[in-house]
Amino acid sequence: MENICEMQTTKYVIGLDYGTLSARAVLVATDSGKVVAESVCSYPHGILSEELPADFALQEIDDYVETMYCTIKQVVKESGCRAEDVIGIGIDATSSTFLPLLENGTPLCKKEEYRRNPHAQLKLWKHHGAQEEADRITALAKERQEKFLMRCGGKVNAEWMLPKLLEIAGKAPDIYEATDNFMEVSDYLVYLLTGEVTRCMCHAGYKLLWNEEDGYPSEDFLRMLHPLLSDLRKKLRGREIQVGECAGRLTKEAADRLGLQEGTAVAASLIDAHVAVPSAGIDGPDKALMILGTSCCMLLCSERLSYIKGISGCVKNAVLPGLYAYEAGQSAVGDLFDWFVSNCVPGRYEKEAAERGISIHSLLCEKAGRLAPGESGLVALDWWNGNRSCLADARLSGLIVGLTLRTRPEEIYRALLEATAFGMRAIFEEFEQGGIMAKELYACGGIVGKNPFMMQIYADVLGKTIFTSSADQGSAFGASVYAAAAAGVSAGGYASIGEAVRAMGKAGEIKYEPIPQNTEAYHRLYKQYKILHDYFGTGGNEVMHRLRC
Amino acid sequence: MENICEMQTTKYVIGLDYGTLSARAVLVATDSGKVVAESVCSYPHGILSEELPADFALQEIDDYVETMYCTIKQVVKESGCRAEDVIGIGIDATSSTFLPLLENGTPLCKKEEYRRNPHAQLKLWKHHGAQEEADRITALAKERQEKFLMRCGGKVNAEWMLPKLLEIAGKAPDIYEATDNFMEVSDYLVYLLTGEVTRCMCHAGYKLLWNEEDGYPSEDFLRMLHPLLSDLRKKLRGREIQVGECAGRLTKEAADRLGLQEGTAVAASLIDAHVAVPSAGIDGPDKALMILGTSCCMLLCSERLSYIKGISGCVKNAVLPGLYAYEAGQSAVGDLFDWFVSNCVPGRYEKEAAERGISIHSLLCEKAGRLAPGESGLVALDWWNGNRSCLADARLSGLIVGLTLRTRPEEIYRALLEATAFGMRAIFEEFEQGGIMAKELYACGGIVGKNPFMMQIYADVLGKTIFTSSADQGSAFGASVYAAAAAGVSAGGYASIGEAVRAMGKAGEIKYEPIPQNTEAYHRLYKQYKILHDYFGTGGNEVMHRLRC
Repeated sequence: MENICEMQTTKYVIGLDYGTLSARAVLVATDSGKVVAESVCSYPHGILSEELPADFALQEIDDYVETMYCTIKQVVKESGCRAEDVIGIGIDATSSTFLPLLENGTPLCKKEEYRRNPHAQLKLWKHHGAQEEADRITALAKERQEKFLMRCGGKVNAEWMLPKLLEIAGKAPDIYEATDNFMEVSDYLVYLLTGEVTRCMCHAGYKLLWNEEDGYPSEDFLRMLHPLLSDLRKKLRGREIQVGECAGRLTKEAADRLGLQEGTAVAASLIDAHVAVPSAGIDGPDKALMILGTSCCMLLCSERLSYIKGISGCVKNAVLPGLYAYEAGQSAVGDLFDWFVSNCVPGRYEKEAAERGISIHSLLCEKAGRLAPGESGLVALDWWNGNRSCLADARLSGLIVGLTLRTRPEEIYRALLEATAFGMRAIFEEFEQGGIMAKELYACGGIVGKNPFMMQIYADVLGKTIFTSSADQGSAFGASVYAAAAAGVSAGGYASIGEAVRAMGKAGEIKYEPIPQNTEAYHRLYKQYKILHDYFGTGGNEVMHRLRC
Repeated sequence: MENICEMQTTKYVIGLDYGTLSARAVLVATDSGKVVAESVCSYPHGILSEELPADFALQEIDDYVETMYCTIKQVVKESGCRAEDVIGIGIDATSSTFLPLLENGTPLCKKEEYRRNPHAQLKLWKHHGAQEEADRITALAKERQEKFLMRCGGKVNAEWMLPKLLEIAGKAPDIYEATDNFMEVSDYLVYLLTGEVTRCMCHAGYKLLWNEEDGYPSEDFLRMLHPLLSDLRKKLRGREIQVGECAGRLTKEAADRLGLQEGTAVAASLIDAHVAVPSAGIDGPDKALMILGTSCCMLLCSERLSYIKGISGCVKNAVLPGLYAYEAGQSAVGDLFDWFVSNCVPGRYEKEAAERGISIHSLLCEKAGRLAPGESGLVALDWWNGNRSCLADARLSGLIVGLTLRTRPEEIYRALLEATAFGMRAIFEEFEQGGIMAKELYACGGIVGKNPFMMQIYADVLGKTIFTSSADQGSAFGASVYAAAAAGVSAGGYASIGEAVRAMGKAGEIKYEPIPQNTEAYHRLYKQYKILHDYFGTGGNEVMHRLRC
């Protein structure tokens, strides 16, 4: 390996990304953004399931802690770089993944009396035990016309932290009362490294219905939810900080354990989806990032505050400092195409793909690629898992129109790809109506590298160039960009996230340009999509709701 | 074999059914309706294709003639019955399958000068060379607000005889002018047997826009279509007769050739679909027959004349004497399910069916049968091949709504079965609005015996008992019932078709009773179908038309 140690001027940052089942650390050169070393570690205990209800999703906190030490040490060792050249650490994790702590910082689950209580454990984002609580919060908020509803698409998600806290207050009041501080796991890891109790407000904005102007939901509102919640504010301790800030510095103990220098900067904790923004090379406002995986998360930063219908959230300083970060989403993208491949593709296609050694997706793309836009006469509504943005209606469902006896599987597949792109266009139009413009488009995520045919359809439908970032960057890289900003210029980092992105980012390696005649054809087809979208989605025909009864 | 010859009192009739590729004769006992002998013969030349455009469908008239002599002789021989005990012959064929004849009754195609002209040949019903002509007739009729349009669903079908005659007048005027008589092939075969030139008006009613009150389209209208057509009436020669009448009697020559007695009654020619009515045991008005095959043809006789929107036709005396016979249809039934099986069923289902030695249809029915009505949350519009009745709009297309990531193939399959049943219900409702009631329901056709699951859905959706007739009766049997009526009581037949049906018919061997809670569930689901039906089918949203551009 390259002898990095002799490159005296080069400094390094570490990004650490916690996913649902594993964590990944990268060590990145601050000058070039080059990933020098990488380490992945799965959580030994995965998701706990023993003797738990099916909708519970708990994890072992030690898995997170050990993984942190292990992967960081591994990348430092692998890179061979000197401890003094590592100037910062950034950590992102899934959000609303949190644990209750005692006053001395000990997790409740470490105490013998709480060890076997599931509500004392680390609750993963996808814990679904608080659906009733989420519904109650939504109902009460609607009744009281709470302003925060407008910033979360009119509906509280069961995965968010507030319903989970209400679940604990209601179902395990002893745990609630014994807790000194409910902490996001990423803030807790920052605390372990720095000894500082901080609370990065990006989490609170999206998952605790907090915002800069009004703070948390009112004490009055919380008391009506549950008497215990009236003092919730006191159990959300920690210095409130924003992304890009330095949360604290490595303690001697942590530094020794990691083989790094005491005092190394540790960035404010981050939300896993959000770190994709700098990772994709986005350095400022009006640049939309589409994270395309099983579902789609769209992030767009803007200088303007505007109420956009049906978004997942809008929080200032949550992604890039000083900007409002809007999050919107589509609840089925890759999942929809996978559903189709699993359920609707005849054996002869499976056989052809197997014989040619290509995936069924690739075969369908190849066949669908021979069609012109609109040629099949099909249009679909992409609501196989409901509509997240901008209708915020989980009871909506998928629709295909235009089927004939001559319709072939690849035509339906293409219609589904087009439908998700149309869904994206509908989201951007909603933003435009609120005065928030996506002037540049970026895409990342699992599908982007795997399905260039789909990316071309997105460029054609959206009528704009789409810059994509390579799959190997990912979230850990994004976290390292925040670390470079947190370290600051004096340490060899950067003055701002924007500057760090411009130096380290790698966007636009592959870009998709819209093909004018396709854009024109899709413009006509989108009109049909939008008529159906509005008819089925906004009350013209409630058939989708009625069918769900 | 049974020694039938000694049963002195038993008389027999022969039914001969001409399909698209073969003919089938049966010899039936008039007292019991028992099929004593049967003979099937494929046409040696099939459908002629040599050097012909793709939309042409011509046949060799000698195939029909030879098949007639051969199959009749065969059933007589096989039965061992005496010539004097065979009292009647009934012949049905596809309608709008016709040929041009010279004044002496010789087919034009037999003359050397016309031998190689395709327009001198026997044109099969499915000849599609006259699409432009059909469109012109529809357009002119709409312009002139011709009354006959109301009896044919507002649109002239290219398969009908009138557009084909316009095609000949326009593209082969010499053939048109040389022709003395354009004759349905079934009338021609009756002529060969009897020497009588007759024209059974059931054909004319459906395919030549004729009706009892107004006759054929006016000379004025025909002249505007093409000057040559102004004398069309003169080229449609023959004594006009109705179903159930005796067209004539076997000539000595024909009797000798067949080994039957001179003077044996030959019934007025019949349309192949219509003979299914007596065959199913229907003896009078208000009993609907659904002929369920690749598509669906519904026949309903009534004492009332009423204008029903979007039917294929309404002709008096066409099926049962004295009654108005209404024909309506659905353009894809079995074809739709076959499309699904060919295009949308994953390999693992194909494998399971193969391993268990059952058809994919059977496997899907088995899996779909475990669902309750409405459980899947799916509703479909069954318009994969347009809508024949009652919207009469070929540009409509199929739709599925309610799809989710949990939707399985058998759920979609069931939704398609249900959709065709809902389509049938919509047709009956249209009839009810016109005061024509289907008080009893009968079903026959290829699917009926093969898919009891589907038949139960039909009974549940329509909320009525469905009587089915066994597949081995078929059209040839129906033709024999008409023969028994044509022979009359004195010869050992019957005084009317109704009496013949009651004696010979075999309906109701298997019947499907509606299950009340399913009927209730489908009643709710049908409301959703109907909202979608009206929205997409009657101008609320013309998206299906626009997608076809």
